[in-house]
Amino acid sequence: MNEKALTSSSEYRVRYSEIDQMKFMYYGRYLEYFEMARTDMLRHIGLPYTEIEKNGFILPVLEAHVTYKRPAFYDDVLVVTSTIAGIPTVRMRIDYEVHNKTTGMLLATGYTEHAFMNPATQSVTRVPKIFADAMDAYFQTL
Amino acid sequence: MNEKALTSSSEYRVRYSEIDQMKFMYYGRYLEYFEMARTDMLRHIGLPYTEIEKNGFILPVLEAHVTYKRPAFYDDVLVVTSTIAGIPTVRMRIDYEVHNKTTGMLLATGYTEHAFMNPATQSVTRVPKIFADAMDAYFQTL
Amino acid sequence: MNEKALTSSSEYRVRYSEIDQMKFMYYGRYLEYFEMARTDMLRHIGLPYTEIEKNGFILPVLEAHVTYKRPAFYDDVLVVTSTIAGIPTVRMRIDYEVHNKTTGMLLATGYTEHAFMNPATQSVTRVPKIFADAMDAYFQTL
Amino acid sequence: MNEKALTSSSEYRVRYSEIDQMKFMYYGRYLEYFEMARTDMLRHIGLPYTEIEKNGFILPVLEAHVTYKRPAFYDDVLVVTSTIAGIPTVRMRIDYEVHNKTTGMLLATGYTEHAFMNPATQSVTRVPKIFADAMDAYFQTL
Repeated sequence: MNEKALTSSSEYRVRYSEIDQMKFMYYGRYLEYFEMARTDMLRHIGLPYTEIEKNGFILPVLEAHVTYKRPAFYDDVLVVTSTIAGIPTVRMRIDYEVHNKTTGMLLATGYTEHAFMNPATQSVTRVPKIFADAMDAYFQTL
Repeated sequence: MNEKALTSSSEYRVRYSEIDQMKFMYYGRYLEYFEMARTDMLRHIGLPYTEIEKNGFILPVLEAHVTYKRPAFYDDVLVVTSTIAGIPTVRMRIDYEVHNKTTGMLLATGYTEHAFMNPATQSVTRVPKIFADAMDAYFQTL
Repeated sequence: MNEKALTSSSEYRVRYSEIDQMKFMYYGRYLEYFEMARTDMLRHIGLPYTEIEKNGFILPVLEAHVTYKRPAFYDDVLVVTSTIAGIPTVRMRIDYEVHNKTTGMLLATGYTEHAFMNPATQSVTRVPKIFADAMDAYFQTL
Repeated sequence: MNEKALTSSSEYRVRYSEIDQMKFMYYGRYLEYFEMARTDMLRHIGLPYTEIEKNGFILPVLEAHVTYKRPAFYDDVLVVTSTIAGIPTVRMRIDYEVHNKTTGMLLATGYTEHAFMNPATQSVTRVPKIFADAMDAYFQTL
């Protein structure tokens, strides 16, 4: 009954260059952390993004959203969790949560929506077989 | 009857460092362009962000959203329009549109939501008088 | 007898995202400002970098150096001057100076050294004719 | 007789946002990697940068230099080694090497020079005792 979900968590330390003069991690940087988390997630199921590009498709972002709850500071270790609920068909939504590793506090949530695109033709496609197969294989292991 | 709106447009040229290997402007960079556009808008009504900070409040971002329609490329000149509809009370929403200056095409839309915060006490406040007054003075000129 | 020099100045406003928690512009950002200044300089002599890439060569950086004298702050307008002394042959050195527009103070100096490379073959070449010709045409006007 | 050296290596994976349209890691990003490596090095000897700032001094950069030998690509794991030769007195030089972890190839070398500064007075100081002591304690263990 329940839809299976692909989920993955990665840790990253906040860089000095990412902090603004409020001493907070700059708000635009969260989209980089989301991107690192989702590429780590895809790597975990055997689909590194370099492999995706070699297979002739890319995952352009259609929408991105961040809800900021508490600031991240320099040198904090952040745990970024990304989740895909079920195998996507034409669009893929990925949800994110960012926690401070030490305090466990939730710092931010968000999501991105992606298309599957053939960069040569610049046309949008359905989910590529290689992608659906990798997710399916992962779901068999759950 | 109609609510007055504060609106402002600024132009920025896309930097080489902002382009990714799809040759598109990186999706997280739009939040920097939104931030430049809103600080330019506040500067236009006599409220540079440095002045805001000196007056003892900051505008932390609560939410940010971007909808991507067409890519921006290296060296493109982007026109970023930001709009605040009416004088805010406890939260402020700013809407954005990003156009390619040469083609006139709409590349992205989005919004940010902000609180008014006293950084010394880390407490949220209502819209500061200096802020409401500057917007009001601007609306008198419309 | 004196070697002619190509020189050009551009102005850029420091972004909030570029400031670190010392309230200074982050030290790595100067290399972005150098890059903006040199691409503006090439645009001024009719050689926009997009045109350079279309003509089948790129200008990879071999070395970069920055000497920091005084900090740049948020919202400062910086004047970045770049200079090429004479027409290059196999390597090209570009020198930079960064001044605060309001105070006139010198904030930083630096240089970059570039090769001329054919990206298809990844091989280094001598200065391409289109490049030497554009510089020569500019020097005729001095 | 030989001067002792503090040396440390850290690994970082190249982010998508760091790649330019030549598919190389952007040349300015190396200064961020240098900064991560030196703060990791200081953390290893019990001097996290947050502790340094709490002790009332900062380490502003006076000079930075990078020599680029081979490009880094998306998803590469880089090993960044930083070295301080001997206990500094008034200036501190840190040397860096960046290798590709998989191939072992040297991608870049460089250095940064730092002052010790009291941010409250904006005045330059000699090496703070806490700093010299931490390096000395580390050298005792070699």
